[in-house]
Amino acid sequence: MLRIFSYADEESAFMSHVTRSVSFDAGVQNVVDGILADVAARGDEAVLDYTEKFQGCRPEAFEVSSEEIDTAFAAADPGFRSVLEEAYENIREFHRHEADKSFFYEQGDGVILGQRVTPLERVMLYVPGGKAAYPSSLLMNVAPAKVAGVSEVYVTTPCDAEGKVSEHVLVAAKVAGVDRVFKFGGAQAIAAFAFGTERVPKVDKITGPGNKYVALAKKQVFGHVSIDSIAGPSEVVVIADRTADPEFVVMDMFAQAEHDPDAAAVCITDSVEVAVKVKELAEAMVGKMVRAEVIRQALASNGAVVVTKDMATACEVSNRIAPEHLELHVAEPWSVLPSIRHAGAVFMGSYSCETIGDYFAGPNHTLPTNGTARFFSPLSVRDFVKYTSIISYSAGELRKTGERIAAFADHEGLQAHAEAVRARLRKV
Amino acid sequence: MLRIFSYADEESAFMSHVTRSVSFDAGVQNVVDGILADVAARGDEAVLDYTEKFQGCRPEAFEVSSEEIDTAFAAADPGFRSVLEEAYENIREFHRHEADKSFFYEQGDGVILGQRVTPLERVMLYVPGGKAAYPSSLLMNVAPAKVAGVSEVYVTTPCDAEGKVSEHVLVAAKVAGVDRVFKFGGAQAIAAFAFGTERVPKVDKITGPGNKYVALAKKQVFGHVSIDSIAGPSEVVVIADRTADPEFVVMDMFAQAEHDPDAAAVCITDSVEVAVKVKELAEAMVGKMVRAEVIRQALASNGAVVVTKDMATACEVSNRIAPEHLELHVAEPWSVLPSIRHAGAVFMGSYSCETIGDYFAGPNHTLPTNGTARFFSPLSVRDFVKYTSIISYSAGELRKTGERIAAFADHEGLQAHAEAVRARLRKV
Repeated sequence: MLRIFSYADEESAFMSHVTRSVSFDAGVQNVVDGILADVAARGDEAVLDYTEKFQGCRPEAFEVSSEEIDTAFAAADPGFRSVLEEAYENIREFHRHEADKSFFYEQGDGVILGQRVTPLERVMLYVPGGKAAYPSSLLMNVAPAKVAGVSEVYVTTPCDAEGKVSEHVLVAAKVAGVDRVFKFGGAQAIAAFAFGTERVPKVDKITGPGNKYVALAKKQVFGHVSIDSIAGPSEVVVIADRTADPEFVVMDMFAQAEHDPDAAAVCITDSVEVAVKVKELAEAMVGKMVRAEVIRQALASNGAVVVTKDMATACEVSNRIAPEHLELHVAEPWSVLPSIRHAGAVFMGSYSCETIGDYFAGPNHTLPTNGTARFFSPLSVRDFVKYTSIISYSAGELRKTGERIAAFADHEGLQAHAEAVRARLRKV
Repeated sequence: MLRIFSYADEESAFMSHVTRSVSFDAGVQNVVDGILADVAARGDEAVLDYTEKFQGCRPEAFEVSSEEIDTAFAAADPGFRSVLEEAYENIREFHRHEADKSFFYEQGDGVILGQRVTPLERVMLYVPGGKAAYPSSLLMNVAPAKVAGVSEVYVTTPCDAEGKVSEHVLVAAKVAGVDRVFKFGGAQAIAAFAFGTERVPKVDKITGPGNKYVALAKKQVFGHVSIDSIAGPSEVVVIADRTADPEFVVMDMFAQAEHDPDAAAVCITDSVEVAVKVKELAEAMVGKMVRAEVIRQALASNGAVVVTKDMATACEVSNRIAPEHLELHVAEPWSVLPSIRHAGAVFMGSYSCETIGDYFAGPNHTLPTNGTARFFSPLSVRDFVKYTSIISYSAGELRKTGERIAAFADHEGLQAHAEAVRARLRKV
């Protein structure tokens, strides 16, 4: 189920085992392009047709009413409600630290330069349906939008054949103060909110995870709206030294693997002993897991234990993978951190298990997957604001620098640019 | 050439005149998909084949040598060199204000939460060729990458039939300290740097303007690499009150229009007198412009003067357009600013002409076009860094909150997530 590699001897076999493609196949591409074009052309009717086809329901109401949301909230287990509320407050607290401020400064003779930060007006957060209807995803997407000051925060999540949506998602929507909850899923939902239809408002940004149809639809509508990064299957790398507890390592790999047969879980260690124990323990414990079959598939296809000659090499291997989640099960995680160059989130030490970050600690759990932590970032308040440059030039400074600026424009062969400056120079 | 609309009477005619589509036609799509697939499959040979086809040259050297760059710099007009240097220092100064800091804070019993900001490692900045070979674009793309701390900053710009690239671009590359200058253009250049070839290194991010083939290629490789926003034709909105100088308004509209027949320039005013003067002056002055034909085409297709009943409505109209550049030719620009919700850059008052921002002031001139200022932002230092969450949980805090976190995971039906926490609880 879990193969042990020697990095020194099997580097390329290991790397090709853990590297996954980011491409979409032509079949998915055709389906998504068809749905996008159809929703753009036929609007609500197309959205309803696809919802009937994929969800088995043609809902009359596009939205969950506020009464339904209140009812779900009132009926929910009080313990669940209170942990959601506590988690949401932690998430908001973290994201408040991220918020950028507008700034300005003065330069030269009366010049003011600055940057203004303003919230997006309307955003849509996609929450997957079915078994993956995660209230935590809702909290993680809504919190940065709310901290940013977005005035209209919508959620959409696919309904079931009776037109109902997950009650857990509704409870989370209430906790997070979502403005409207829609009942659609799939590429048709992405299209509706990207283009706008008669009854679905066009939004400025679409965020949230989804299957490959949703992911590709988001990529295709990029430019019509903003999107967050494109989510692939989830992944964890655990760097373990000889002090690591193999049970913690195995359980965290299981927690990742239970999401999806495409999920990946890799343990990198400089200790052969730890490697062997992790493999043995994984085989011994998997039978106790509710989602044992998914875990077995994920670990066989995308799981690995790799042994490196030292911790420096372990960090290098992790950097090559650029994992979404990186756990440092090492004696001194803060002294390892400077060697880590690419990771969505780093979990420091044996008690920082990923589950805490997934639900509760505060940092966002929407993280760059599939090696994109080289260049993408966790979902943040920055995703829900836009920046505007402010340039206030003075007559005095124009008199000093104007002719040189005009000459620069002449060098680019743009005479009207130059003359726009000189028209002022003649009058100041 | 320049039509005057009444917003009260012709709102929808005006809005449809100034609204442009963001779609790519199927012909462009097919060409770009073909080039991307070919470069992914055949690497350098494909890049050379397309360069021969489109530039008429099959360069032996992929890069401009540092000797060529030094020669171009030495041969350049000293005045041009010094204005480039001064502009570059202004641009860097502005972008230093943007740089985000890593942060951490402590919470509860020994918990540390934080966010680490680290530069991207390798980026490629596309500089268009031909008449649009703008050294200012190079400075504007390189400065935020350098301020961010990117260690390898590459530029690519299409060569001519002799295998040469613009000397102005080389001078700017020297001023900005670009690490390597490549000679390729078009979708084939985007593909080469997104996928990597034998002789072209894969990068983490691609930025910079380009024609529709370049823009679509960037969109298609999004996910393989990060990109900046997708650039459309440039546009300016001038809000003018009765105190505006019509000559300044007209010259700034010309400066925008001379870029491209697809460029847009719109004057919004609450003064019929200003509207009429702008139209008359534009017709009287266009003949003096070197690029008169481009200006005429752009203003006829995408230019307009629109009269609103008051300044509040003028701001509303501007917000509907969400322009790339917004100039406030009004008596009190700072009192108008709070009514502006969407713009890439705002130029305050009659002396803040766009040319100054294009070349010299400091804020980035790579701005969101085509109404995307609703959700996209100017190119910034934030484009050249990535963020990593840091979660350091303690045994003490885990003892307090662990069981509630595990119960949350149970609610999502993820047993291994819950048991990963409980495995720790049994041992702390």
